[in-house]
Amino acid sequence: MRIDIITILPELLTSPFEASILKRAIEKKLVEVHFHNLRDFSTNNYNQIDDYQFGGGAGMVMMIEPIDKCISGLKSERNYDEVLYMTPDGKTLTQGIANQLSTMENIIILCGHYKGVDQRVRDQFITREISIGDFVLSGGELAAAVVCDAVIRLLPGVLGDETSALTDSFQDDLLAPPIYTRPAEYKGWKVPEVLLSGHAAKIEAWREQKALENTKNRRPDLLEE
Amino acid sequence: MRIDIITILPELLTSPFEASILKRAIEKKLVEVHFHNLRDFSTNNYNQIDDYQFGGGAGMVMMIEPIDKCISGLKSERNYDEVLYMTPDGKTLTQGIANQLSTMENIIILCGHYKGVDQRVRDQFITREISIGDFVLSGGELAAAVVCDAVIRLLPGVLGDETSALTDSFQDDLLAPPIYTRPAEYKGWKVPEVLLSGHAAKIEAWREQKALENTKNRRPDLLEE
Repeated sequence: MRIDIITILPELLTSPFEASILKRAIEKKLVEVHFHNLRDFSTNNYNQIDDYQFGGGAGMVMMIEPIDKCISGLKSERNYDEVLYMTPDGKTLTQGIANQLSTMENIIILCGHYKGVDQRVRDQFITREISIGDFVLSGGELAAAVVCDAVIRLLPGVLGDETSALTDSFQDDLLAPPIYTRPAEYKGWKVPEVLLSGHAAKIEAWREQKALENTKNRRPDLLEE
Repeated sequence: MRIDIITILPELLTSPFEASILKRAIEKKLVEVHFHNLRDFSTNNYNQIDDYQFGGGAGMVMMIEPIDKCISGLKSERNYDEVLYMTPDGKTLTQGIANQLSTMENIIILCGHYKGVDQRVRDQFITREISIGDFVLSGGELAAAVVCDAVIRLLPGVLGDETSALTDSFQDDLLAPPIYTRPAEYKGWKVPEVLLSGHAAKIEAWREQKALENTKNRRPDLLEE
């Protein structure tokens, strides 16, 4: 898989891709991630990539021309399955969308900034608009990193323990049950006895019941779907 | 405001806090962000902070003792309004929660990893569990960065243009209207004429109508609440 991220702040994005699972996935060549600094595609001497909005109002708007140049250049080199735009009014990211994106060959992710991009960018170039939630960030960079993390960890070979991703929350529409590790008692707080019993069937039954209870208490909406 | 982030991967978190708005907010001393490497609080020679889960199963569990040591140390130095735990089964972050957190003095954010933390950590130390959405990340670090970004940009003095945050999506339960900037025509794609008219009342009416249309088409749930 190849991911091209278009951003005005490539320096914001470095450390998440240079640590832990994403770093190892890149080193193992399971994914390629390329950053493109939008200012390199500016068409004037000031490296301008934003301008005041037509009709007035606070906040700058990202201009269409540098974005067009960057996306068109990439598309001339290979085919892309999707051109994503990170924006708070996009479709909310779910595990299902992450699963779907993880099957793709090449995607572009455009990070919004300021008040956002010129609407014509969205109309002409973007195939899918994604939000990571109902809150506003100072830019799309962290949202893009979140999408990359959610997607890349699903690629075959990225997670060491093949079964681990499958027992995560959401993969089966249930939240995970409570988990415990050593010590069995700490400051008087004890691990539930069933988990220490060694009785596999009882443990499995307890976990299923707790997962269902957790889901009922915290996220009844997951059970209704 | 002061934010203490407890993590096993402080190196993953550096760049988002060294760029753009978060960097400036820290430089202006509008917020202090401190990273605490959980491995520094390990109680054995291997810097161990995780262990196998009781009852068996794939994935490691973060141990209670190092977390207790780190949180107790911080609490002995100052009062904390909240001890947050980033976890996919927490309460989903909204703009309302970000607004609320932005009024606090001191918060701790614990980043989950692997399969998560020992349940006793959640029962004993955590005051609020937050998810950034229905998807699984390889750790809580990016989620913590997202919370910090959503919160810090709301602190007085952080955004240059005081009115800018107020016209964001979600602050009034409506999505933003389409925005445009120069050129007025690009490859035959034109900016809506009303925005070029200079007629403030007509522009305002058009924007309100488009904001409502956008919300109806993309996020009818926002209008139902």
